Amino acid sequence: MATSGFCLLVHGGAGRRPPEERVAGREGCASAAQRAAAEVLARGGSALDAVQLAVELLEDDPVFNAGTGGSLTEDGTLELDASIMSGVDLRAGAVCSLTPHRHPIAIARAVLEDGRHVLYAGAGAVAFAKRAGYVPVPPESMITPGAREQLARWLAARAPASGGGTVGAVARDRQGRLAAATSTGGITGKRPGRVGDSPVIGAGTYADDLRGAASATGVGEGILRINLCARVVAGIAAGASAQEASCEGLTALGERIGVDAGLIALAPDGRLGWARSTESMAWAAVWEGGEADGC
Amino acid sequence: MATSGFCLLVHGGAGRRPPEERVAGREGCASAAQRAAAEVLARGGSALDAVQLAVELLEDDPVFNAGTGGSLTEDGTLELDASIMSGVDLRAGAVCSLTPHRHPIAIARAVLEDGRHVLYAGAGAVAFAKRAGYVPVPPESMITPGAREQLARWLAARAPASGGGTVGAVARDRQGRLAAATSTGGITGKRPGRVGDSPVIGAGTYADDLRGAASATGVGEGILRINLCARVVAGIAAGASAQEASCEGLTALGERIGVDAGLIALAPDGRLGWARSTESMAWAAVWEGGEADGC
Repeated sequence: MATSGFCLLVHGGAGRRPPEERVAGREGCASAAQRAAAEVLARGGSALDAVQLAVELLEDDPVFNAGTGGSLTEDGTLELDASIMSGVDLRAGAVCSLTPHRHPIAIARAVLEDGRHVLYAGAGAVAFAKRAGYVPVPPESMITPGAREQLARWLAARAPASGGGTVGAVARDRQGRLAAATSTGGITGKRPGRVGDSPVIGAGTYADDLRGAASATGVGEGILRINLCARVVAGIAAGASAQEASCEGLTALGERIGVDAGLIALAPDGRLGWARSTESMAWAAVWEGGEADGC
Repeated sequence: MATSGFCLLVHGGAGRRPPEERVAGREGCASAAQRAAAEVLARGGSALDAVQLAVELLEDDPVFNAGTGGSLTEDGTLELDASIMSGVDLRAGAVCSLTPHRHPIAIARAVLEDGRHVLYAGAGAVAFAKRAGYVPVPPESMITPGAREQLARWLAARAPASGGGTVGAVARDRQGRLAAATSTGGITGKRPGRVGDSPVIGAGTYADDLRGAASATGVGEGILRINLCARVVAGIAAGASAQEASCEGLTALGERIGVDAGLIALAPDGRLGWARSTESMAWAAVWEGGEADGC
């Protein structure tokens, strides 16, 4: 799947999902990837704009655990995490523990463009969003019946919840620029204030034109402790293919931390890779003249 | 400086400081390192306990930008970041945007021991701290005249502030276990909610018994974007000495991001390394039968 043109790869989260949700996840990924490729990359737009649009579309889709439909804290609140990175100059923006806002990834992008800081948390993230023109939305407009049911099941069983449904995208545009973005509601039943890997540059998201790009999903506590995306990108830089580096990253995560995850990756030449140690991970890819999806 | 026994290396922040503050920083580092080595490592205690105690002592010392004496936000508030990691099993704990609590690193350690999550932000960090038995203290008990003066100067000039004075420690105990810890008030004049590298595992702090340990200080926005500590530890794992890997990390940070920093590092065999691209960085090392310090 090497290409001298553009390419875009999105994921809809690694985890264990019933068959009908898997299909919906695959379809949602394919739709977001096709639209971002058509509206941005095929018109000569930037990888950064493409990953932002793809993730915004996935945030709007209640099938995924990001934006609308995001997983709830043990208190029943929605706290959102997102990050985005430009491979051109390693600029990055991220927010964590953000109260309901429709597109957390757009606020992360505003952090990147503002340039003063990289990561804002909690009330400070809300204040930054407001300053940048993003207004909070009523929580009930983003909290879905499905998210409430998942929390009820978690509260009843107190079983470890999966991070299933986090969304992410990596892209290369026709100018060879790379970008990556990730957005999530975190894990169902998380304590308020818990921050996972998704808003952390190098853990959930990474992009460097010279070395590669990646977006991860899975048990955030584990991914954080091993800097999964930075590790995969370093593997690509050291000569592994995006596919090999992705598999090696998940092997290291399993062996050293003992948790499962999934990820998508992209080498500077546009070769794609994806891997999961979970039961499923929805994904979709679009490149100059072709597309593919799976779960 | 290789050793089969224990060793402990602390830093008191990279930046530009007047000569009298440099001396105070070096003395504070030496005092904290000596006490943590004597009270923990020389008695057969763990590297994890040693880095926690060293950082608690530095948090109490108003000379440093961590705990008491931490840098203030543009609103004049104190928001604290800290993280700690055990190299044995890669367990980690961190807090960010924490309101005034005497020892943020102790709360990060409680996060590590609790084990449910790795990183808590803002109000959620305060709630976790309360649950773990840590009570907030009056802000005025931790906000120093020096921190207020720095903020006043920053507000007057709006010049980019340095991250000078962040504190950190890396240690190896007699059983060969590694640990790392970092604590900071961030940069003077930061926006509320801004999170730097210090509470991010892989950026400001990393420890892995099999690969090495590191703690960083400097412009957090840059360190975050390059995962400095994970990168240095990967360099050690790939065969570089702790010293070479530290220098390579700072070179990459300068070349790709264009900012300055400092860091301390430790190889699994106990060999130490430290480097800075800033004008000064207070540090002190104590090992079985010897000690050194500088700035």
